[in-house]
This record gives sequence, C-alpha cells and structure tokens, in this order.
Amino acid sequence: MTRLFNDPADFADEMTEGFADAAARWVQRVPGGVVRATAADEPKVAVVVGGGSGHYPAFGGLVGPGLAHGAVMGNLFASPSAHQAHSVAKVADQGRGVLFSFGNYAGDVLHFGQAQERLRAEGHDVRTVLVTDDIWSAPADQQEKRRGIAGDLVVFKIAGAAAEQGLDLDDVERLARHANARTRSFGVAFGGCTLPGADAPLFTVPEGRMAVGLGIHGEPGIDEVDIPTAAGLAEMFVSKLLEELPEGVSVSGSRVVPILNGLGSVKSEELFVVYRTVHRLLGEAGVTVVEPEVGELCTSFDMAGCSLTLLWLDDELEPLWGAPADSPGYKKGAVAPQRRVEVQVDEAADVLPIGPASAPSQALGTAIAGALADVAEALDEAADELGRMDSIAGDGDHGIGMQRGSHAARDAGRLASEGGAGAETVLVHAAEAWSDRAGGTSGAIWAEILTTVGAALGDDSTPDAGVVARAVREASDAVQAFGKAKVGDKTMVDALVPFAETLAAEVDGGAPLATAWQRATDAAEAAAQATADLVATLGRARSHGDKSLGTPDPGAVSFALVCRTVHRALAGATATK
Amino acid sequence: MTRLFNDPADFADEMTEGFADAAARWVQRVPGGVVRATAADEPKVAVVVGGGSGHYPAFGGLVGPGLAHGAVMGNLFASPSAHQAHSVAKVADQGRGVLFSFGNYAGDVLHFGQAQERLRAEGHDVRTVLVTDDIWSAPADQQEKRRGIAGDLVVFKIAGAAAEQGLDLDDVERLARHANARTRSFGVAFGGCTLPGADAPLFTVPEGRMAVGLGIHGEPGIDEVDIPTAAGLAEMFVSKLLEELPEGVSVSGSRVVPILNGLGSVKSEELFVVYRTVHRLLGEAGVTVVEPEVGELCTSFDMAGCSLTLLWLDDELEPLWGAPADSPGYKKGAVAPQRRVEVQVDEAADVLPIGPASAPSQALGTAIAGALADVAEALDEAADELGRMDSIAGDGDHGIGMQRGSHAARDAGRLASEGGAGAETVLVHAAEAWSDRAGGTSGAIWAEILTTVGAALGDDSTPDAGVVARAVREASDAVQAFGKAKVGDKTMVDALVPFAETLAAEVDGGAPLATAWQRATDAAEAAAQATADLVATLGRARSHGDKSLGTPDPGAVSFALVCRTVHRALAGATATK
Repeated sequence: MTRLFNDPADFADEMTEGFADAAARWVQRVPGGVVRATAADEPKVAVVVGGGSGHYPAFGGLVGPGLAHGAVMGNLFASPSAHQAHSVAKVADQGRGVLFSFGNYAGDVLHFGQAQERLRAEGHDVRTVLVTDDIWSAPADQQEKRRGIAGDLVVFKIAGAAAEQGLDLDDVERLARHANARTRSFGVAFGGCTLPGADAPLFTVPEGRMAVGLGIHGEPGIDEVDIPTAAGLAEMFVSKLLEELPEGVSVSGSRVVPILNGLGSVKSEELFVVYRTVHRLLGEAGVTVVEPEVGELCTSFDMAGCSLTLLWLDDELEPLWGAPADSPGYKKGAVAPQRRVEVQVDEAADVLPIGPASAPSQALGTAIAGALADVAEALDEAADELGRMDSIAGDGDHGIGMQRGSHAARDAGRLASEGGAGAETVLVHAAEAWSDRAGGTSGAIWAEILTTVGAALGDDSTPDAGVVARAVREASDAVQAFGKAKVGDKTMVDALVPFAETLAAEVDGGAPLATAWQRATDAAEAAAQATADLVATLGRARSHGDKSLGTPDPGAVSFALVCRTVHRALAGATATK
Repeated sequence: MTRLFNDPADFADEMTEGFADAAARWVQRVPGGVVRATAADEPKVAVVVGGGSGHYPAFGGLVGPGLAHGAVMGNLFASPSAHQAHSVAKVADQGRGVLFSFGNYAGDVLHFGQAQERLRAEGHDVRTVLVTDDIWSAPADQQEKRRGIAGDLVVFKIAGAAAEQGLDLDDVERLARHANARTRSFGVAFGGCTLPGADAPLFTVPEGRMAVGLGIHGEPGIDEVDIPTAAGLAEMFVSKLLEELPEGVSVSGSRVVPILNGLGSVKSEELFVVYRTVHRLLGEAGVTVVEPEVGELCTSFDMAGCSLTLLWLDDELEPLWGAPADSPGYKKGAVAPQRRVEVQVDEAADVLPIGPASAPSQALGTAIAGALADVAEALDEAADELGRMDSIAGDGDHGIGMQRGSHAARDAGRLASEGGAGAETVLVHAAEAWSDRAGGTSGAIWAEILTTVGAALGDDSTPDAGVVARAVREASDAVQAFGKAKVGDKTMVDALVPFAETLAAEVDGGAPLATAWQRATDAAEAAAQATADLVATLGRARSHGDKSLGTPDPGAVSFALVCRTVHRALAGATATK
C-alpha cells in the first residue's frame, strides 16, 4: 500500500515536483509534465509520451537523450488532459514535428487526440502511435483494441532512438508503429496497489492465487489460477507468447528482446529466478536473446505482479534497441553529454480570456457557477459509492475523478463569474478545469458537455428553454461521436441520450424548463438504476467467477446525479423568482 | 511477500544464475559470485564487494565499469563464506591488489577477514573498508560498530571510480575510507519481507506505525512512532542527519549528495513526494544538492521502508561521485565501451585434497561422518524453533542457516570418508562445506570449531579422551578470539566455554570420554536454557516495547543440541564396542 503522502489530493503534483527536483539533470517541468533539460546540436523529431501517474519510470522517467523528449503526466491512474498534452508537445516541438505515443486507453486516446487536433490547427505536424502489446486485453484479430503495458518502453525506445538519429517524422512514426506490431506482452498479478489515502486496494486476488491477464490498473483479467512455481510462470509466459507471433515471424532463428517487468512488489530476486527459465526456454526454442531487461519499467505503485514482453527484432529494430539512452529511469550504453537548455514557458498565453458579456448572461453565469458548486458538493457525498461501483468493472477511479473534476470546475467557474464572465465563458473555464484536473475519459466527456452547452448559451443572449434543450441535444450528439459509445454500451451515454431526448420532447410540448428538466432527470435516473443493478449483479457474479457480463461504468449514475442536482438549482431559481 | 520461487533452498543459486543470464553484458559467474565481463586496457585495483543476497542491486548489480570488479554473493541475508570471497577476489585481482568493501555485519567481517588472510598468504595485496553509515545502529562515538545500509553504494562508487582512474591500492583504500567517514544514513520501516517459502514476514510493525532505525534484515530499531506525512518523514530524516555531521563539516555552504533509497515496496512515487521536502529542507539549510539519487539501491526484498543517506562531498569526492559508471543496477554518465573478457576458472584447483590416513583414523572419520548425519537430522527437527527464537532478537535465519550448513557438512563428510579420508580431513571437508552453504556468523564459527578439532585429531593418530578434550578447548579459545565474544554476551560462547571446561575437568578426573561428554553437554544445556528463557522474556517484553534486554542469539541452544546429538553417537559407539 501507499503510506507516504501529504494531502492525497496533492500527491500527483508533489510527486512530479519531487521527481523534477531529483531528475534535474535530465528534465525540467513545464505545465502538464516534463521536457528534456538538454538538447542535441541539431533539431530532432520530438517524441512525447504520457499517461496517468503511478507507473514510474513510465512516463516522466523515460525522458532524456535517446528516449522521449517530453512526458505528459496525468493524475494517478488518470489520463492527462488535452490541455496538458498540448502544453508539453508545444514546448517539445523543435520544428520537425511531434510523435505522440502512449498506451491504448480510452481517456488517453481522447485527450491526446484533442491535443493533436489543436496542435495541427496551430501548424504543428503531429502523429500518434498507440501501444497495444497486452495480448490478454483483446483477441489477436482485434489488436487495435489491446491495451498498452510494458511494451510502452519498447515503442518509446525505438521511436526515441530513431528521432535521435535525425530521421524525419514519417520514419519515426513508421518505426514506432513497426516496433509496436512486433511487441507482445503477458502479465499476471497477485494483488493490487492501494492508492494514497484509499482505505482498500484497487483489487484483491485470493491468497495463493494469481490473476492472469489483469491490467496495470486492476482491469479484470481473463483467468485465475493457483500461483505456479517460478519455472511454471516462465513456461506459461513463454509458451503463450510463442503462440502469438507477429506477422511474418518464425520462432527458430529469431532474435528477441525479453523484458521481464515487475509491477511493484515482485522484486528483482524473484524476477531473476523467473528469468532464468525464460532465458533457457527461449534458447531451447531456437531464439537468440538480445540485450534483455529485468526490472521495474512500467509499474503500478506496489502492485504485486509481473509481465513478460517480447520484442521480435529485425535489421531495422535491433540497432535502435541497442542505441544509447540516458533518462532518469532507463539508461543504456554511452550517451555523449548534451548542452543544457532552459525552456521558457509563456504561462500567460495559456490563461483562458474572459470576454465581454451581457448583464443577463453574467447573471446566468453566476447561477451556473452556483450550480457547479452544488454539483461538486453532491459528488463529494457520492464519491465513495461511485468508486466502489467502478472498482467492480473498471479501475475504481470514477468517484475520485468526478470529485477532482467538479471541484476544479466549481473553482474555475466561480473565478470566471467573479471576473464578470457570461454563461459561455463560465462553462468553458469550468470545462477546461474539469478536464485538466480529472483527466480520464469522464474528464474529457464532461469538458465536452460543458463546452458544447456553453457555445449554445453564448455570452450575450438570454437563452430560453428551447435553446437549453437544443444545447443539451448537441452535447449528447457530441459525446456519442467523441466517445464512440451508443445507448446500451453501459456508459454515461445510456443516461445522457434519454435525458436529452426527454428534455427536448418536454420543451417542445410546452413544459417550463424546470418541469422538463425534472422529467428528463427521471429518465436519466431510470437508466442509472439499470446500470447500478447490473453492477450489483456483476459484483455477485464476479465472486462466482462469471466474467461474461461486460464492464459497465458508473458514468450513467454520476450523470443522473448531476442532472438531479442541477434540477434542484433550477427549481430553486424558479421558486425564488 | 516473496511468491515466485522453485525449491526455496535453491533460490539464491537460481537467482544468481538468472541474474548472470540477464546481465551478461556486464558480468560473468565465477564460483562464489560474479566478476566483470569486460576489462579496461590497463590493469586496475579490483574493488570486490559483497554480502548476503536479497538486497538487489546490492551486490551483484553493482559490478561494472566505474563500480565494482566483483561481487561475492552469499545466500539470502547470510554472509558469503570465506571460500566464496576468496574465489571471487582471486579471479578479480588484476595484479594491482584487491579492496574488499561491504557492510559491517559480524558474518561478513569474519568471512571476508578469513579470505583476506588466505589471499595475503598467497601473495595478494588485500585491504578492507567496512561501510558503517547507519546512524541508529550504534552511538556516534562508536562508529566502528555501526551497520552498513544504503551507504554501501556511496563507498563502492567512490572506490570504483578511484580504481577506474588508475589510482593505486593505497589511494583507493584511503578514498573509500574517506567516503565512508563522510556518509550517514537513517532508515525507517513499515513492515518486513517474507523470504521465499517462509510462512511469516521477518518482522511486523503495527498498522499505521513506523519502526525508526530498523536494520535491513529486520534487526530491531530504536523507536516506533505513528507513520508521519511524507513531509514529516523528510523533516525527521533531514533534521537528524544534519545533527550528525562528519568531522570538519559545517552544514551551510556544503555540497551534499542525498540518496533516498526504497527498501522494496515503498515505491518511486512515494519516494519523490518525500524527496520534494528533503530537497527543499536541504536548500533551506544552505546546502547545495549534487546529483541526487531516488530509487532502489539497497533493498530487502519487498520490505516496506526507506532510508535517506547524505554524502558530504569535498573536492576529492565530488568528481569521483560524478564519474561515469555502468553496471546492471546503477548507471551514470557515458562509459566508453570496453573489451569483453572470458574468465577461466580452474575449478579443480579449488577442490580440497584427501591425503593418506591411518586405518584407525579412517574408522574414526567414518564415525564422525555418521555423527554429522545425526547432527543434520537433529537440526532439521529444530530448525523452525531456532528460526523463531532468532527472529525475536535477530534476523531469523539461524535455523535455516544451521540446517543448510549441517546438510552440506554431512554430505561433504560422507564423500570424504568414502574417499578414505582420516578424521581431520573429514572434519576439514565438512567445515568448508558448512561455511560455504550456511554463510553467516554461525557458518564461520562452526567451520572454525570443526577445523580446530580436526587439526587436533589428525589423519593418522588414534586420539584418546585427553586429545579430544584439548581439541575442544582449543576450539573454544579460537571461537572466542575469532568472534570477539565472551561468556555472558548471550551467544554460542555461553554454552561452548562451560562445555569445553567441564569436558576437560571430567577427562582430567579420569572419566571415560562418553561420560565426560555427557556431563559437559549437561553444562552446555544449562547455558542454552538460560538463553532460551531470556529469548522468551524478550519476546514478551518486545510486545510491550521494552528494547533494553539486548539481542541474545540462539547459538547456545543449537550448540547444546549438537553436543547432545554427538553424545548419543558416542554413547552408541561405546555401547556397541
């Protein structure tokens, strides 16, 4: 468990600060993460990696010559925001373009995707290569759905080495993609980590048992077996990975990099005992082992678990794997000293402006800021229950994520309103803050909702019920497009769509806004209840081992809660009028 | 806990094998540990480090250019044997001498000391610098009694860098000693590791509490407090270390290397949060921080704990700390590639010979081999209880150490006897095997006893009771000299001395050997009982927090057990005559 922290809410920030102090030879802080503290003589393609925090040396520890140029560092186990990714990439770009690379998780894909769009609009050449090495997270014919785990290091290393050699963005992207296509990982776990301040581990595995294929945030695995011997685990790892060969690879005669990665509290000595058999089995299969790694390269706090990654080399990849690298958390060979650089960050350029607004829109902005405060309060009360529900099917961070996001939105909304902002500006400031602090998929989606509604309300109009209903409908459409989810997928969309449809129908039928909102909220709550029931069933079924029921997220539940809270604010406003 | 192993008895060997496979770019195996797989163009002073296994990257992970030339790798938490240290140093010596450096633990001091004597007798120039950085393990005016913890890295790094620069043995020794004198550490723990196959952790700390000053093998600390915040722990570390300055150092204006070391399951993120405050506090004290390290540099499996080390730099030490190094577990800067070398080890030269023996001595050798088998069997039964007793005051390995040692002695004794060895040769072979496999202090002491008794018995005489009594008396004297312990120190000496004295008195009084041995055993058992009683009292007192009762080891108990077992063999031999 995590024992050393100050205020758990400050953990990720303080960790990044301490890391930047300790690793000042390699990195310097910029808003959103870190970039290199040194530069080569010639400009290079910038490899920018990232993801949630809690996986050290991924991601900040992999910044330095021969590896990444920058790392976007999100909150604990939560993807960074688009704003963070944009900020780090903008500083890192040396004029030769940016390669984003990160593990394939919905929140990261959303946020880095938004950042990429914004950077491209600003004239940066930006590409993205997702890491998808975890063979248990989706079948072989759906590799694009697979998660990224310790294969991160491989793809970053190959991309970083290619960039260091001065290759252009096309080649760096191609080689990173090629490395990912030739990288496969397989992980197991004996127990989960306990996040700072949490009172229970993210997941547990029964004593003496081992979860097979479990994700690095505790995402459910595919099987549970008795803990094998070290040799038995090595055999399981190697036999499965030798069955899942990349296209065009045959085992015998191949050259392979094995990476035996510890997740946190499986220690070096145990890993070496396992590696002994991995090494022997690869040799017996006719494979030549090249520069293996055994250690902690992509962790999950003190999670008890480990994974084996195989990188199937070819003539292009082998020299890139062998090239020198010098970062706080991964070093190889001899990197010639480079000159130090001091990055100048124009923080003022990053502050959202407050434009002119009409008096009625300012009044509406004040009301919205008040409603945001109510939402934050309601989510404080619900956070534990939301977290508990999320931990059954997901990574357990939904409660804390909604809490962080809504607090930030409340503060930003209040500041904007006090600064004279209209409705749109209050919502846009709140949206940016929510996304920044919450990270994760839900942070991105709530930012999308607030921004879309804000754009419909504007800063100088006095919107009527019809405008509000249309704004909500647009937000519903945007979220479906953006999150690629539809009704029935057991996400927030299950509640958002009936809410938007009921609201529009009621308003069209002549109901006042507060009444229409109440009925729409009833519809959202019905969907939320269905999700809650499914989660409860799933909780019971999981304890009996049935994993066929899918992975509902409690987004519908928190969405309905927000609707109900806003309804109270609306009803109160109507009553006092 | 340690979950991944095959046969726990093979863990250390298999770990070393897997490590050598994974780290073949840096190291190659030799009997007793590893040496570098590369060599510089010119011969250098060889820095040979070592200790028990379970502390990765200490000790094997610190072998490579700019660091150590060889590491002697003992069993889990048990010092290597003199034979191992001799073997590694002999291969590592490039003709410019050897510097032994290791943490100040009784077993390591004994074994490396014996190896040093043997190497010097063979013409090698060998020096030893003990690491004594742990400020809680003895008062400031008894620094020579302090244990070595994460300060190991500092002393090895400075010595390794000095050797790499081509300095001679006098200078390398002086600089290592100087580095040790300017290095101070302070550690805390939240819980102990569970060794492979053990069913309980080496020690526990109550939930929410923190042991202050606890050793890396679970040696008792000096205090227990509530777990502070990360900032609170940083303040505790820094304030205490700034009180304990090396001679001639003043805080303000100094340049210091802080090393925040994780013991196993306190992870990087937590360490960075703690480091953030360490860094700030050092800055506020007027200290300039130079190239800090935050990570796992001297571990204890997955023990939950961490330590802060400060190295107070001067003009000599700073460039040595900053010099490049390239080892499996610690890398710094750019080390130019070196040529690979293949060490040729003459294993045959290392096998003990069996010389000619008289028929009566051969018969006595067979009887001794039989008694050794009885001893191994008796220790099998007693191992758990001995381990339990040792865990109250020590590191809990006495049972398993005696078991490993006696098994090896039994096998070596039988082989020698079957090969026609006389009494002395059987005992010498058994002694070497015991020391090799058991490691630790008790391994060294039992080897000393068997060797001393063997020398008195010879290979061609038919010793009478007087010879045996004198042999035991010599062994008793040798052990007291060698282990620097006297009666009343609550070690094996408490039982050995009355045993030797009673045996001599009874034999002088005309008693037959079996009778004299029985009375001597009675005396040893009385002493053993006193130790057992003290351990029981201590167990009860510890649970009430009284740590003033000292640290008895169960060596007296196992000694009495061996005497009783040998008595049965003697009585049986007498009865069947």
